[in-house]
Amino acid sequence: MKFISDIIQIETTGDTDILDITPIVTDIVRKYQVKTGTCLLFVPGSTGALTTIEFESGVIQDLKDAIERAAPKGIPYAHDKRWGDGNGYSHVRAALIGPSLNVPISEGGLMLGTWQQIVLLDFDNRPRTRRILAQILSE
Amino acid sequence: MKFISDIIQIETTGDTDILDITPIVTDIVRKYQVKTGTCLLFVPGSTGALTTIEFESGVIQDLKDAIERAAPKGIPYAHDKRWGDGNGYSHVRAALIGPSLNVPISEGGLMLGTWQQIVLLDFDNRPRTRRILAQILSE
Amino acid sequence: MKFISDIIQIETTGDTDILDITPIVTDIVRKYQVKTGTCLLFVPGSTGALTTIEFESGVIQDLKDAIERAAPKGIPYAHDKRWGDGNGYSHVRAALIGPSLNVPISEGGLMLGTWQQIVLLDFDNRPRTRRILAQILSE
Repeated sequence: MKFISDIIQIETTGDTDILDITPIVTDIVRKYQVKTGTCLLFVPGSTGALTTIEFESGVIQDLKDAIERAAPKGIPYAHDKRWGDGNGYSHVRAALIGPSLNVPISEGGLMLGTWQQIVLLDFDNRPRTRRILAQILSE
Repeated sequence: MKFISDIIQIETTGDTDILDITPIVTDIVRKYQVKTGTCLLFVPGSTGALTTIEFESGVIQDLKDAIERAAPKGIPYAHDKRWGDGNGYSHVRAALIGPSLNVPISEGGLMLGTWQQIVLLDFDNRPRTRRILAQILSE
Repeated sequence: MKFISDIIQIETTGDTDILDITPIVTDIVRKYQVKTGTCLLFVPGSTGALTTIEFESGVIQDLKDAIERAAPKGIPYAHDKRWGDGNGYSHVRAALIGPSLNVPISEGGLMLGTWQQIVLLDFDNRPRTRRILAQILSE
């Protein structure tokens, strides 16, 4: 039993940019030849989040619309009044979705459904170079 | 330290069917005589999710109402326009709640609160035979 | 590889009290001299939840406002009609955010972002003495 750590680095446009990182995570599992294990993904940062969804442009837009309803960009945020960052909505969105995701690995592959992809959501209000930590516990 | 893997199979009605899977998970912990460990539960599929709640019909309805406010069934979804599946709302709901849950195990039992149950939420728009992966890391 | 278990005990005011527990979790990581590992945090109880956010009073209020929009305190809840607890909104809020969080540990520290703190959200409608389970898998 051992820990394997890797870092995924990815360019984002910000403003609820939703990116499919499944191929990158799959490559990490293959690179380290993990047969059985758990893959913990974690976004260090308070304006990014992780979940899974079918990565299809229609439903990605639908998810953006639901997030806009939950924490609209255009309403006043106390964070912005105090700090002038303009990204109060980004922080709230990230806290609601959450920064961590666990995916089991079996027979050398991520145990995702056929139409299920791992996505990074970058809610910040500007382009970012994002780092996502991949920490695999391998049998 | 070892991984134990099992699969929970359960019939659902779909359309935000919320089911208490605690007894099934408890049986798995007992079957493999896990004393100390972590139980990762994961739904493969992009229209299912996991969380915990007091499994009481009143609050289950309240949770359904909150999810309906967040991603209403009756509004247009881009996913449905493109694919005609009619389950755009299901995908969005599942992505908001998330597919994975971790529960610690100690002294041979799940460390849940007294009124806290593990629930599967099936958001799809039709009955499904659902599989939930239980991956336990046991000391 | 070994499991380390500890319990965080904390007084809350309830009613969506959001508390920064990062210093307490950091102390646990130091106390057990964990170099590499995974920290699972779990709230036993169906009216508490965990996430990460920048712990700044402005954005904490913004998060409370978003949660109030998602599951308003002032609307009728079936849970309250049946049980008279008055905390139906608390249960729904906790189920939406979720009870578990995983944070990787590397080089003896939690791998959080610079402005990212771990927060307990106590949604119950009264003050509580809350217990949060910290289960660390240490290399």
